[in-house]
Amino acid sequence: MLKNFELSCPIENNNDLITLSHGSGGSQMHDLLSKTIYPFIKNKNSEQSNDAAVVEINNSKLAFTTDSFVISPLFFSGGDIGSLSVYGTVNDLAMVGATPLFLSLALIIEEGFSKEQLFKIMESIKQASKIANVEVITGDTKVVNKGKGDNLYINTSGIGIVNLDYKIHPKNISKDDVIILSGDIGRHAISILAKREGLDFEIDLESDLQPLTKYVQSLINANIKIKCLRDITRGGLAAALNEIALTAIAEIEIDESNILVNNTVFNLCEILGLDIFHLACEGRFLAVVPADYAEESLDILNKVGCEAQVIGNIKSLGISNSVVLKTKIGTRRIIDMPTGELLPRIC
Amino acid sequence: MLKNFELSCPIENNNDLITLSHGSGGSQMHDLLSKTIYPFIKNKNSEQSNDAAVVEINNSKLAFTTDSFVISPLFFSGGDIGSLSVYGTVNDLAMVGATPLFLSLALIIEEGFSKEQLFKIMESIKQASKIANVEVITGDTKVVNKGKGDNLYINTSGIGIVNLDYKIHPKNISKDDVIILSGDIGRHAISILAKREGLDFEIDLESDLQPLTKYVQSLINANIKIKCLRDITRGGLAAALNEIALTAIAEIEIDESNILVNNTVFNLCEILGLDIFHLACEGRFLAVVPADYAEESLDILNKVGCEAQVIGNIKSLGISNSVVLKTKIGTRRIIDMPTGELLPRIC
Repeated sequence: MLKNFELSCPIENNNDLITLSHGSGGSQMHDLLSKTIYPFIKNKNSEQSNDAAVVEINNSKLAFTTDSFVISPLFFSGGDIGSLSVYGTVNDLAMVGATPLFLSLALIIEEGFSKEQLFKIMESIKQASKIANVEVITGDTKVVNKGKGDNLYINTSGIGIVNLDYKIHPKNISKDDVIILSGDIGRHAISILAKREGLDFEIDLESDLQPLTKYVQSLINANIKIKCLRDITRGGLAAALNEIALTAIAEIEIDESNILVNNTVFNLCEILGLDIFHLACEGRFLAVVPADYAEESLDILNKVGCEAQVIGNIKSLGISNSVVLKTKIGTRRIIDMPTGELLPRIC
Repeated sequence: MLKNFELSCPIENNNDLITLSHGSGGSQMHDLLSKTIYPFIKNKNSEQSNDAAVVEINNSKLAFTTDSFVISPLFFSGGDIGSLSVYGTVNDLAMVGATPLFLSLALIIEEGFSKEQLFKIMESIKQASKIANVEVITGDTKVVNKGKGDNLYINTSGIGIVNLDYKIHPKNISKDDVIILSGDIGRHAISILAKREGLDFEIDLESDLQPLTKYVQSLINANIKIKCLRDITRGGLAAALNEIALTAIAEIEIDESNILVNNTVFNLCEILGLDIFHLACEGRFLAVVPADYAEESLDILNKVGCEAQVIGNIKSLGISNSVVLKTKIGTRRIIDMPTGELLPRIC
């Protein structure tokens, strides 16, 4: 390749290498997954468009999921890599309607990391497991050379049990179903950004990090017919909605007036030129339910502590996939799958 | 601390930091686990002295395990990080008598890693999953900044089903039980070392990497009363035997003459001053069975491709824990839990 350097296009060359945007949750990641990962793990039980796989073992429906956490910094307002590792995986299980039961915990520690910090993070894992009502039952510890990691990476995998006679999945969506958002968006991303930039003492903002199980279970216990659930993480609301639209082949319309954004988040996005719809959360989710269930769903969610709103609905099904935003001033704009990566290592 | 720098002991200071030896599988790792990790995840289902946890869900016994793979180099004679990630976790499930069913696959990719290599590794994961008869059903992909990883780290977690009416565990061991070793030791470590040192073209040696399920299942199918199983990985035969001795409070005696070592492995250990008993394998295991079952167990294992030998037995139980080697020249020496780390990132 070096020989032809002057004739070759550097952008094309970069296509051979993994970039940070491949971990963004946006279009480059979806491209990597669909071309380089999924073709090799395709099987009848593999799950490519939901947060966890659901399999039957001896007539029990089990949910299984995994997540690695590479967040930087390790500690932030409202949590740390420990609580994030517990809630992140618990939430992936919750998103298929499972009750989370057991977690695994695998640490990749960089040589030179302080035991005191590890201690703090383990204490946080203990507390978060208690709050989320899960048990860490198996684990692994690896140490890599200094300069080959970044303090600490954590992987948690989780097993949950599903007691539903149908599958929660984007493919269940029908025309006119409504989309509920469980609370305000972007607080996780902005709190991480504030910590990175040393702004955390100046702004009063906590990550939205929390376990989502009780909200989903409240809906299930009330027999709400949940079509699809999606937690808003990497790639933000834009990625979550586009993933649903893509899997269901749906045209989605959402209304900006009904999307809650904290003032600090809004103002920092304005100043820094960030798109609110691309910001990661770690304690917010979308639920797609039939329009008949909208009001009851909001009542239930808001009674257990959400600030849920109906933010949009399914305009058409089976024709094409798109996400359209009706802005506050009445115009319409396409919300695309995010590209690139403005805030890497947010989870 | 800086103020008292001249008065403080640098070795004591180092005790506050994680070192490579904390990932060795030897005594420093056990110390870290028992002081900093286990106290925070202790619960009725957590497993601290077996390769996988076994839990009951709706009357099914499920095995659950996790492993991160940080091996360097990624490709070696006899395998790569892909096949290692599949077989490593499959083997942890096999060691509790489980039939492995499902794996998760989580990638932490360093920015700048080549897609071509990722492709090769995914192909290897596909082939290994087929050979080990497991399905990868859920996954995660993260990308970290250049210089914050080392090409690729992989975590796999695994679920298996256990169809046994008793638990395979070191605590089941009785006095006079025999210890069977499934084949020659140290080929994995030496093949990695050879690759690192550029000796791989000069020596004809492959890693012992392989799935162990069929060997264990052959014993189970023949109703061999397996007391305990342990695959030999980090820390080698020395760590595996000491872990068993420690958990069971057993005095173990092994006979050097019955431990198979490939000539190349033996010679390289002599030249480089490595202790053969500390070398990692990725396709060898210990089985502790009642003496009555010894001959039948060897027959079964050797029929399905092992070179199994009885290497020792349980001399006493409940008194103290030790591992004693009867050498080829008739002397006896203690085999301690390994300390330090001569070959980091072997798996």
